[in-house]
Amino acid sequence: MRNPTRPLVAALCGAALLLSSAMLSPMGHAQEPPSPPPVSAGPVEPALIEDLVAASRILVDQGVLDAFGHVSVRHPNDPSRFLMSRSLAPALVTAEDFVEHDLDGRGIDANGRSLFLERFIHAEIYRARPDVKAVVHSHSPSVIPFSVVKRPMKAMYHNAAFLAQGVPIFDIRKHFGMTNMLVSSSQIGRTLAADLGDKPVVLMRGHGSVAVGPSLPLAVFRAVYTEVNAKLQAQALSIGGPVTFLEAEEGAKADLTNEQVVGRPWELWKRKALGK
Amino acid sequence: MRNPTRPLVAALCGAALLLSSAMLSPMGHAQEPPSPPPVSAGPVEPALIEDLVAASRILVDQGVLDAFGHVSVRHPNDPSRFLMSRSLAPALVTAEDFVEHDLDGRGIDANGRSLFLERFIHAEIYRARPDVKAVVHSHSPSVIPFSVVKRPMKAMYHNAAFLAQGVPIFDIRKHFGMTNMLVSSSQIGRTLAADLGDKPVVLMRGHGSVAVGPSLPLAVFRAVYTEVNAKLQAQALSIGGPVTFLEAEEGAKADLTNEQVVGRPWELWKRKALGK
Amino acid sequence: MRNPTRPLVAALCGAALLLSSAMLSPMGHAQEPPSPPPVSAGPVEPALIEDLVAASRILVDQGVLDAFGHVSVRHPNDPSRFLMSRSLAPALVTAEDFVEHDLDGRGIDANGRSLFLERFIHAEIYRARPDVKAVVHSHSPSVIPFSVVKRPMKAMYHNAAFLAQGVPIFDIRKHFGMTNMLVSSSQIGRTLAADLGDKPVVLMRGHGSVAVGPSLPLAVFRAVYTEVNAKLQAQALSIGGPVTFLEAEEGAKADLTNEQVVGRPWELWKRKALGK
Amino acid sequence: MRNPTRPLVAALCGAALLLSSAMLSPMGHAQEPPSPPPVSAGPVEPALIEDLVAASRILVDQGVLDAFGHVSVRHPNDPSRFLMSRSLAPALVTAEDFVEHDLDGRGIDANGRSLFLERFIHAEIYRARPDVKAVVHSHSPSVIPFSVVKRPMKAMYHNAAFLAQGVPIFDIRKHFGMTNMLVSSSQIGRTLAADLGDKPVVLMRGHGSVAVGPSLPLAVFRAVYTEVNAKLQAQALSIGGPVTFLEAEEGAKADLTNEQVVGRPWELWKRKALGK
Repeated sequence: MRNPTRPLVAALCGAALLLSSAMLSPMGHAQEPPSPPPVSAGPVEPALIEDLVAASRILVDQGVLDAFGHVSVRHPNDPSRFLMSRSLAPALVTAEDFVEHDLDGRGIDANGRSLFLERFIHAEIYRARPDVKAVVHSHSPSVIPFSVVKRPMKAMYHNAAFLAQGVPIFDIRKHFGMTNMLVSSSQIGRTLAADLGDKPVVLMRGHGSVAVGPSLPLAVFRAVYTEVNAKLQAQALSIGGPVTFLEAEEGAKADLTNEQVVGRPWELWKRKALGK
Repeated sequence: MRNPTRPLVAALCGAALLLSSAMLSPMGHAQEPPSPPPVSAGPVEPALIEDLVAASRILVDQGVLDAFGHVSVRHPNDPSRFLMSRSLAPALVTAEDFVEHDLDGRGIDANGRSLFLERFIHAEIYRARPDVKAVVHSHSPSVIPFSVVKRPMKAMYHNAAFLAQGVPIFDIRKHFGMTNMLVSSSQIGRTLAADLGDKPVVLMRGHGSVAVGPSLPLAVFRAVYTEVNAKLQAQALSIGGPVTFLEAEEGAKADLTNEQVVGRPWELWKRKALGK
Repeated sequence: MRNPTRPLVAALCGAALLLSSAMLSPMGHAQEPPSPPPVSAGPVEPALIEDLVAASRILVDQGVLDAFGHVSVRHPNDPSRFLMSRSLAPALVTAEDFVEHDLDGRGIDANGRSLFLERFIHAEIYRARPDVKAVVHSHSPSVIPFSVVKRPMKAMYHNAAFLAQGVPIFDIRKHFGMTNMLVSSSQIGRTLAADLGDKPVVLMRGHGSVAVGPSLPLAVFRAVYTEVNAKLQAQALSIGGPVTFLEAEEGAKADLTNEQVVGRPWELWKRKALGK
Repeated sequence: MRNPTRPLVAALCGAALLLSSAMLSPMGHAQEPPSPPPVSAGPVEPALIEDLVAASRILVDQGVLDAFGHVSVRHPNDPSRFLMSRSLAPALVTAEDFVEHDLDGRGIDANGRSLFLERFIHAEIYRARPDVKAVVHSHSPSVIPFSVVKRPMKAMYHNAAFLAQGVPIFDIRKHFGMTNMLVSSSQIGRTLAADLGDKPVVLMRGHGSVAVGPSLPLAVFRAVYTEVNAKLQAQALSIGGPVTFLEAEEGAKADLTNEQVVGRPWELWKRKALGK
């Protein structure tokens, strides 16, 4: 979505852009497989793009993303498309930076811009999970230690109730041997999506995690509180002795409330992140 | 307290507002039981409202509150009333956002505004503890781990001397089985107040804590130093070996001094929080 | 030192101010014993007062002081006098707030202003240690845990080399039984100074610590790096296994270098703290 | 490099400056051995100097440097020269502060300015490692604990993949007995460079660490992610049980990707550090 207010221009330029995009091999990022040029699912509301910009900056503000990581949202008009920024530090993302992707990880309107190497995380989760409308991939610092130990991450308190469903770990080595650790293909993305299953969060061994949700605010909320929960759980374990976690039923009930009140942190975070 | 400088207008509009408030069911929050419409205990000094705004922002500034949590003060003219903001992130609270509540958790001048789901924490503590003039409920991060382990929180140093009286834990599961973890009724609030007993702080298992005080600055002081103490105690425990805590008598003596000097942090925090 | 640029006015007003100061009992703080009214050792250079203001704010900036704690400097003209602010949060201190104290903890030019309850820490250390020109008392958060455990604080790295001389702990309970934990008299101050001995830092059980130095920048440097060292040592201990600390000889040699380069952090911190 | 835009003036003034530089003994820092006056390798691009200023400030911004530590870059025209600031807190460095050094640690255009005591770290690594184009020396807080324990630092995740080659520790006591802990001579620098070997990072016992790279952005990247990795590893160890680190082959593959994407954090950090 380069500029959602100029759909006519976009339509006229479409074919040419796609052609040039397909021919470019931008800095080793977007190696698009040969296939019939895909057609855009059309522009989306500017408010959704503003929310995506906000989500990117919120996740930086809240210490979930640093120079790496990304957030996407499923296209409201076409479940086989999603919107994610071009390869860029999330703190720098603006409305002009979003690219429509298909579920094979191809950029529809990339126009030669580099795409994220790990866009397949998003693509394959959108393919496997029709309920998911937004995806966050991060290397948030308190979460990574739980990806490399035996002790599972569990729900410490009601704000992280969504973790009471269990938190699987995707280990790329188990499936693909020695790699560069990245989810750099549809195949690896499919395996990650399978390990995520029907859960809201999956950890990635020696790498980071993915949080998904039925809306953009809820995916962001889950990414933030997964980080908070990790910090709290590590501290509880360092105090020592048995730890009482939320029961699955408590988690399910508390999560319903979280979904009702998510607007409260979302509005606060958005205001702070956009400097309003 | 929407606008304490306009008591006449408030008086004239009272009946109509209460009627409309009773009929609204605002977003699943304020489900007020049918009962004779309560009458306001009257406006309070603007300085008290300013202190409440300051308290809300201080608690955010000091890392005690994030997007959730709330602070209240008992009504100076009527011990059966207290003032707390409508359901809103504490960083965003202004003088216009305060609502007079009665001890059943009903908003006297809510005028259709959503109330906090957990206002019953405040209501039932004010009912049970005549000495309490202010209440803070938070999910402050270092405190939560102590709510889910066996090792009790104890007073590490003189600034947290109030903890030397002992720190009880309220476990909602023990009393009410599988819940959404929230103190969402007078009944649950009463049980929490009973577990608090005559202490200044109670932890809530898998949730957070409540700090109370004989004044607003002191309740805020206790909420802040409960968080600091938790951080210090976790660090002492991670160093290992036996830890020497304050004796109860030391705590009682040191707390008297804290009560005398609370104005020093209060003025500093207020100045920072209000950007003055 | 209310205003060092007006020595004549100060001289003229001296007697009257001292008289009124002696009669006031300001909020339970400055209870001055009856004695012949002391005479000021005279004004000091404005640059020294600016350094004291800077020291106060540096210590807040660096996370050593919060709303509590204080820093003092020995009077350059009279070793039996020292300058410390009136009882005030250190972040708020200005040049107008400094009071000349004698070694009995009396304010020479207090003029009715409240003095710190714990000015006796400073007074008795200046009495016992002619080499000390500046004193910092703080509750810096990483240090307090080391005041309540058996494991001694030791020098982790060259910047904290001054700790390689050993870090004694003053336990007020051992000497005075159940107290309010404060060094609120000359007698308690003397005991603390005795426990400090010839070292640069003493911990205070369940309370905080004191750092001293042959100059104001060096006392501030030691307070800052005592806090850093505590954080590093706690982390090393949590990693586990034996820890290699600086040997006493390494510490002595490295500390000589620290004394030579202390101007580098001092200028940086001062610039930040004074917003220049 | 005082001012790279004035090469003619620099050339004319050269001999005189070198002469005066050799005669000064600035505050115990730059004690230059008698030898034929070295000749400058010439000015460098202003963009490189801007990057060096940026690197200094980035490392402060990212919590790697405090008032101490330094970063250098090899001279692009002459492999036997490198550029590093005069002895100054890294947050205060400007384009005017850079000095050309030779591999004996002599300042070519110091012009009487003090040089860093530990410039020999840089000099000897540039001498031993032709592949190295930039060097960072820091006391970053999470790394120091790993310099004094038995448990080795290992690669926790893909961003710190360069650590999977192994992280040696230089212990000055082992080679030189009781010292002031500083790398204050060519001889000590050579030993440090030998312990570094062909690795990207070496820890210094009771002191800090050095990160090197084939470019300035990559050396900075490694310094930052060594600090992050140390924090993550300490947290994983405190959770307990065996930790799964990156295998050497995973590390080698992931590091190739890091080298390709280093521009993303570099541009973000630079923009933040320079306030653009």
